[in-house]
Amino acid sequence: MRDFSKDTSALALNTATLGHNLAGYGMDWPVERVIEECALRGFGGIVFWRREIGTRAIEIGNRVRAANMTVAGLCRTPYLVGSQKPKNWKDETLHCIEMAAELGSPTLTIVTGGTEPGTKGVIETQKILAERLAEIAPYAAQRGIKLALEPLNPMFGGNRTCLMTVGDALKVCERVDAPNIGIAVDVYHLWWDSNLAQSCAAAGHRIIGYHLCDWLEDTTDMLLDRGMMGDGVADLKAIRASVEAAGYTGMCEVEIFSQANWWQRDPSEVLDTIVSRYRTIC
Amino acid sequence: MRDFSKDTSALALNTATLGHNLAGYGMDWPVERVIEECALRGFGGIVFWRREIGTRAIEIGNRVRAANMTVAGLCRTPYLVGSQKPKNWKDETLHCIEMAAELGSPTLTIVTGGTEPGTKGVIETQKILAERLAEIAPYAAQRGIKLALEPLNPMFGGNRTCLMTVGDALKVCERVDAPNIGIAVDVYHLWWDSNLAQSCAAAGHRIIGYHLCDWLEDTTDMLLDRGMMGDGVADLKAIRASVEAAGYTGMCEVEIFSQANWWQRDPSEVLDTIVSRYRTIC
Repeated sequence: MRDFSKDTSALALNTATLGHNLAGYGMDWPVERVIEECALRGFGGIVFWRREIGTRAIEIGNRVRAANMTVAGLCRTPYLVGSQKPKNWKDETLHCIEMAAELGSPTLTIVTGGTEPGTKGVIETQKILAERLAEIAPYAAQRGIKLALEPLNPMFGGNRTCLMTVGDALKVCERVDAPNIGIAVDVYHLWWDSNLAQSCAAAGHRIIGYHLCDWLEDTTDMLLDRGMMGDGVADLKAIRASVEAAGYTGMCEVEIFSQANWWQRDPSEVLDTIVSRYRTIC
Repeated sequence: MRDFSKDTSALALNTATLGHNLAGYGMDWPVERVIEECALRGFGGIVFWRREIGTRAIEIGNRVRAANMTVAGLCRTPYLVGSQKPKNWKDETLHCIEMAAELGSPTLTIVTGGTEPGTKGVIETQKILAERLAEIAPYAAQRGIKLALEPLNPMFGGNRTCLMTVGDALKVCERVDAPNIGIAVDVYHLWWDSNLAQSCAAAGHRIIGYHLCDWLEDTTDMLLDRGMMGDGVADLKAIRASVEAAGYTGMCEVEIFSQANWWQRDPSEVLDTIVSRYRTIC
């Protein structure tokens, strides 16, 4: 395994961690300052959300690289399935791919959306998802973008996801059979899966993202109560070992939605804590 | 498969469905009336919670049987693992077994509790759970009681459960290797598992309980927003087929915690709705 205590070059910040996405919370830093503060602390990359990029993708990508970091990802496509899928899902997804390419991001994250209207459970929806991914994968490949399917905690079934495990995501990858579709392994969503080591081994090179945070023992909110690494019950070292044993050597992206705790703090303190926990806990 | 449209004898009410466990909500019926109203509608059984039974176990059990129903289960032991496990977990569990025996219930439900202090993830805790089950299983066997391990939705990991899937529970069953330890399959907790049919087949006769409700597409509360059968996205017929293909022929226990909806209604309406949905949807 890589030695995180000595080298933070694989550490990436997902900007959601600074509370960008809820008015009145956390970060009031402009993108320029986020880049500067991450570079100062030895981060290797940043993952942005579309709302922060707007029409400035090329400029922001260049600014990140000028600070000796990489754009490690972009969040995220609209839902591709489920009752909350927008009508123009395909155009919007192609736009996301374009934005990721202009940023110079290697990947684009996909949260799939929930159970397709007129169906029950997840299995039918997974089939429909595979068909829709097959429609967009070639364009993403042309633009050099890998699509990262992110399985979510089963509590997000119904309205947000049809993929709950690495096994689910791998099944969809194999059904689409496009080389640029992979899987993002997120600690928050997958820490509970006693079969995770085996399914990561089966996924192998399909694993193209690794997201860090922690699951708090007494989680109080489904969406906005994620823990800082070390504050919860996830076995972070075991999960990283599973991901790296599968061949993953990419970025470790810290993504913490924490309305009542970390989003209330000074962003500098949040970044310092991330670096310190990354070196000692992850 | 059994024909539920013609026969409600396998239908059981879990009394939580009538809001018993939150002051000010739902049922203000005494146990006697619950028994009477269920019998009137053709229910085959009732599952009680300990707080309703007190010292009246023998009397209540006899009353249920006099109404031509069975006591289909008892909820539940204290947590056996995790930081919220009571110090006297073993004495309290033996007391539960005694109560189940006096009621004439064939099973006692176990919600395990969460990650054991000093450990991470779920795998170590599952081993400790198996050791503790081995301590109590012989006494339960003496009293004719089967212990039903209930895997919970992964959102309850950390503080409430170390079993998230039928596969997890089966692994623990096999580790304990006592004939009276089995698994309760609850739609709310397991509907999302695309591997459920296979793991039910593997569990076979270990399946000793089946709990009915539904997962609402937009679930608003982790604990108290369960749906009535037919109102959500769970594939109820497929799940029942999996359970019955494994050999299960027991009760179908309706257990709906619904603070904002069903617990606000007249208990008679709730029971009528259950019978109607059971006949047409399940």
